[in-house]
Amino acid sequence: MSIAYGFGVDVGGTTCKMGLFDEDGKLVEKWEIPTDREHHGANILPDIAKAMQECMTRNHLQERDILGVGLGVPGPVTPDGIVHGCVNLGWGEKQIVKELEQLTGFRVAAGNDATVAALGEQRWGGGLGHDSMVLLTLGTGVGGGIVIDGKALCGYNGAGGELGHMNVNPTETTACSCGNRGCLEQYVSATGISCMANRYLQKEHPPTILSQEDTSAKAVFDAAKKSDTLALEIVEEVGEILGRALASISAGINPELFVLGGGVSRAGEILIEVTTKYYKTYAFHACKDTPIVLAQLGNDAGIYGCMGMVLSL
Amino acid sequence: MSIAYGFGVDVGGTTCKMGLFDEDGKLVEKWEIPTDREHHGANILPDIAKAMQECMTRNHLQERDILGVGLGVPGPVTPDGIVHGCVNLGWGEKQIVKELEQLTGFRVAAGNDATVAALGEQRWGGGLGHDSMVLLTLGTGVGGGIVIDGKALCGYNGAGGELGHMNVNPTETTACSCGNRGCLEQYVSATGISCMANRYLQKEHPPTILSQEDTSAKAVFDAAKKSDTLALEIVEEVGEILGRALASISAGINPELFVLGGGVSRAGEILIEVTTKYYKTYAFHACKDTPIVLAQLGNDAGIYGCMGMVLSL
Repeated sequence: MSIAYGFGVDVGGTTCKMGLFDEDGKLVEKWEIPTDREHHGANILPDIAKAMQECMTRNHLQERDILGVGLGVPGPVTPDGIVHGCVNLGWGEKQIVKELEQLTGFRVAAGNDATVAALGEQRWGGGLGHDSMVLLTLGTGVGGGIVIDGKALCGYNGAGGELGHMNVNPTETTACSCGNRGCLEQYVSATGISCMANRYLQKEHPPTILSQEDTSAKAVFDAAKKSDTLALEIVEEVGEILGRALASISAGINPELFVLGGGVSRAGEILIEVTTKYYKTYAFHACKDTPIVLAQLGNDAGIYGCMGMVLSL
Repeated sequence: MSIAYGFGVDVGGTTCKMGLFDEDGKLVEKWEIPTDREHHGANILPDIAKAMQECMTRNHLQERDILGVGLGVPGPVTPDGIVHGCVNLGWGEKQIVKELEQLTGFRVAAGNDATVAALGEQRWGGGLGHDSMVLLTLGTGVGGGIVIDGKALCGYNGAGGELGHMNVNPTETTACSCGNRGCLEQYVSATGISCMANRYLQKEHPPTILSQEDTSAKAVFDAAKKSDTLALEIVEEVGEILGRALASISAGINPELFVLGGGVSRAGEILIEVTTKYYKTYAFHACKDTPIVLAQLGNDAGIYGCMGMVLSL
């Protein structure tokens, strides 16, 4: 019997990450194409269709060899395959599943990029072997994805897993990118940690190797690993806010484990340790031992998750 | 063809509410038996089995007429039908599904009481016609139940929907019944609102019809309905904390609607209005319009939900 294949496509504001997988979820080929945001993103789906066709030619694949296509997009997607506004791509409301099916003739599944990444980590990464998990992606912003019984939680408005926009500080005066004030993202994203470091540097503080010239999340965690007092204080605040948020999520969803991904998670064990410490403080007694682990698929989580959706088609 | 029946049993610390339902979910008979907490609650399940047998005799029902039994208990229940500690009943870890099946010969399903009540409201009450909803029961404590795609979310440790124990105030110094500090339950339960009223009365405050003699949640809402300035202030604080918590829940689960039940919800529209106002302030833009409505089944939500579990057996 011949092997069947699927495509995973993680659509971002700058590039679309593309992957060809075999039916066992093995990544056969991985490449990127630019995302053309001109004309309200009208060329994005046709460009993806063309790139898949070229890949099939390169790999001597026929239409009958392809199980389907999974599509992850940076915005809310409802279970009917409709995007409801995707500022980064120039899309308003758009029937992406129907359109890509018409362009390719393949079956298509679509989801929010963070939710799809959670599916990837659950099936092949940090969540391997666990049926229910919550992924938090700590990058420029904070994305989230919830998997329950192996199935992604999309939410009624496609906003399931938008955990970066939980309110963690009702007294915050500056606004989040979403327009609200006091969202989790404002404190534990790479941007949020950098803002926090600036705030600490501007008030009276102990001697530190940190400086205004580099207040990146990486600089903060690197300094903390060298036992820099100020950096350790900042890391404690990040851990308190993140651990408390995870505890609140646990009180509702009570997942089997939490997985932390995104650029900030490259800090590694120091992030896991401080977050776990505060998680245990705030978590409901029945779920104090929920493990918090690092993501494993890096930037490929999205295309893996897309392939996961193809296998569930 | 003869009609089939099912039993719904909502086990509480003082009484067990029992219901006989027909296969369409119509309540045929409803009664209560005392909960015998002696001997670590060893008689509770045998008493329930006996009461069902007597009901069958009264109604001339045979074993073959019974579809099964649904059991709601005040503690975490894992999907394998095991209770993990139920202080109010004297139970430690207990295989309640297996034990009641052996006692009766019927098929048994079990769940946490608040989660089961959510199933009842979703199928026959305030959530009728909606596949995904979150119930908050504002009683002596705060219980919660989450229904997604018509299915109750139990959680890995049976703590799914324990929304009363989300942290909403990291600076709280007094302890919640669960041992943590700053849980939602400490502010929006009947007990919590009463404590809040006492706090307001003890500091400088405007003239009020409220007094230390009656600071019940009912007294507070009744005074607020008469435009009492102090009572309105307290109601605003309750609405702010509850609305903010619902917004954080929405950012994760994004349900189709929220249903508020329990004694506090008898306040009615004033509670819905103030909670909705603050919900809209804090909610992520995609889910600002999630409706917040009142529960409809009152104390019967549990037995209805138990029957819902029987119909899903």
